Amino acid sequence: MLASPPPSAKAFVPFVSVENMMRLVHRIGIETVLVELTDEIEADFRRWQVFDKTPRVASHSSDGVIELMPTSDGEVYGFKYVNGHPKNMAHGLQTVTAFGLLAEVSTGYPVLLTEMTLLTALRTAATSAMAARHLARDGVKTMAMIGNGAQAEFQALAMKAVLGIQNIRLYDIDPLATEKARRNLSSAGLNVISCKTAQEAIEGAGIITTCTADKQYATILTDNMVGAGVHINAIGGDCPGKTELHRDILLRADTFVEYPPQTRIEGEIQQMPDDYPVTELWKVVTGQVTGRHEAAQITLFDSVGFAIEDFSALRYIKRKLEGTDLYQDLDIIADPDDPRDLFGMFQRAQ
Amino acid sequence: MLASPPPSAKAFVPFVSVENMMRLVHRIGIETVLVELTDEIEADFRRWQVFDKTPRVASHSSDGVIELMPTSDGEVYGFKYVNGHPKNMAHGLQTVTAFGLLAEVSTGYPVLLTEMTLLTALRTAATSAMAARHLARDGVKTMAMIGNGAQAEFQALAMKAVLGIQNIRLYDIDPLATEKARRNLSSAGLNVISCKTAQEAIEGAGIITTCTADKQYATILTDNMVGAGVHINAIGGDCPGKTELHRDILLRADTFVEYPPQTRIEGEIQQMPDDYPVTELWKVVTGQVTGRHEAAQITLFDSVGFAIEDFSALRYIKRKLEGTDLYQDLDIIADPDDPRDLFGMFQRAQ
Repeated sequence: MLASPPPSAKAFVPFVSVENMMRLVHRIGIETVLVELTDEIEADFRRWQVFDKTPRVASHSSDGVIELMPTSDGEVYGFKYVNGHPKNMAHGLQTVTAFGLLAEVSTGYPVLLTEMTLLTALRTAATSAMAARHLARDGVKTMAMIGNGAQAEFQALAMKAVLGIQNIRLYDIDPLATEKARRNLSSAGLNVISCKTAQEAIEGAGIITTCTADKQYATILTDNMVGAGVHINAIGGDCPGKTELHRDILLRADTFVEYPPQTRIEGEIQQMPDDYPVTELWKVVTGQVTGRHEAAQITLFDSVGFAIEDFSALRYIKRKLEGTDLYQDLDIIADPDDPRDLFGMFQRAQ
Repeated sequence: MLASPPPSAKAFVPFVSVENMMRLVHRIGIETVLVELTDEIEADFRRWQVFDKTPRVASHSSDGVIELMPTSDGEVYGFKYVNGHPKNMAHGLQTVTAFGLLAEVSTGYPVLLTEMTLLTALRTAATSAMAARHLARDGVKTMAMIGNGAQAEFQALAMKAVLGIQNIRLYDIDPLATEKARRNLSSAGLNVISCKTAQEAIEGAGIITTCTADKQYATILTDNMVGAGVHINAIGGDCPGKTELHRDILLRADTFVEYPPQTRIEGEIQQMPDDYPVTELWKVVTGQVTGRHEAAQITLFDSVGFAIEDFSALRYIKRKLEGTDLYQDLDIIADPDDPRDLFGMFQRAQ
């Protein structure tokens, strides 16, 4: 019996653990990562039409949702596995965890597997910053951050690094969450203000970010709270039955979305009729459509998260990994010398 | 700054490499694995109606297809990533590679990540054997195996272990593939006959298995080759534009399928009108419908592979892993002590 030959290079897929992802981001610097990711995502929004697009494939249960989010630009394929379980927090678990993969379209062979819990927080913040760069008023310095959970600090840092936001006004129904965010941002070079109500948090804010996790129709913002000229960055309403804004706000705002077929199922606009007008954000990014046309306009980015943003983030990480030791080679692809001889490879392994 | 606490057990996902999968199957014995997998899949076919079912999510390109195949039984969620690239073989790569994952529905946390190239070959063979156990004539001793690529030996061993097949008649357009399969099966306790034509291979065969890889409409079997009483196990026609049987065979056969909405897109029956009658295999397994009602009947299992079969295989592997050391713990889930404090975990890792 022949000795089993060593696996080929194709048999191994670079894997980025949570620990290595944290090291990579620290090595580059989180604000630099957020700026570069914002540009990476914007570059992919500019070529929106080359991508295969499909609403994510969701498996809903009474406790939450598990989703697969695939896309491809014809050369590279990517997908993310992500869950959303609001009740997890009460059991000491993350509401959202994720991992993702890139593969070559020409061969179907994976080329990267990585944690994406941290990376999703980074890409969500970068997408918010990219949208705000196109939709918020020029020179805005203050953001209200309503919902101070796992995403809050990433949102604050991205708005600082990309838009020059200086003041963050925090509010959460749980004061411990606000205190956690304040403490984590204490040395970030931001003026951080803890607020006792949502109303207090939005005072003077040019951007209002809502990021709460209840899987139910909630009203985090009511109509009378939203003044002229504000940009609303609504990222918590992201699955059927989960919204954050009173529908009257949607009647006054110009609403921008990632991919309408998905957002109409999952976003704030699930409260609205099917013909409620929305603008695709990529058309603003490419200049085909004007986003903000007057200072008093209320703009709303009804963000649910789309596969192309994950694709951008995965490609960014793959590029940044080059020349580092921040990955392990994972023996996940069976790659016999003779591709038809899978059984022979198995036999020789005995 | 606090020291970073060690990750919790939930942060780690057991990962089964190709090498460990081969060790596990050798340790149990491949024929035992095939018999147990056949029973595992049959048990899940018996409770077919509890599963979330959806046609797989396919990303097609000129070179092949990349697919995600999710399902859930309400307690456990599973999915498989799998590609199909017929041209890969010419470049020394596998036509099909795969990996898969199980997760808890209640939390969305992954509980198993594993190679599935080898496991897919095993589950496909086990599914074929399960279908043949219900559809082939009693006492059949000979199978023709047309297409002698990576799946061939697994098919032969499953039909031996589950049905008592004694004679395997091999044919492939490439004699080197036939020689490879003959050599690999030489000590399997089977009477293996290499044939020069498909016509020669089917002589005396009670089961005809077709498993070729061209992504095009092909005619591996013509109508005059298929005699009364035969069971056809057609597993190569498994994506749009890819079939193996002449449509006249379909007019004479009773056709059994896994999940009609997927098979009508991908299977042999894509050649037929939408109202071409098919029987769902799970209804035969549960006894609701009679599969074979007379000896002269031609039965056809138009197999394309369905997510529930992968789910069964993943659960089987997870159970068999218990008490072994045949996995690595993969740090793929970010799991901070305080689930809202993802950023704090990142900060403390510096």
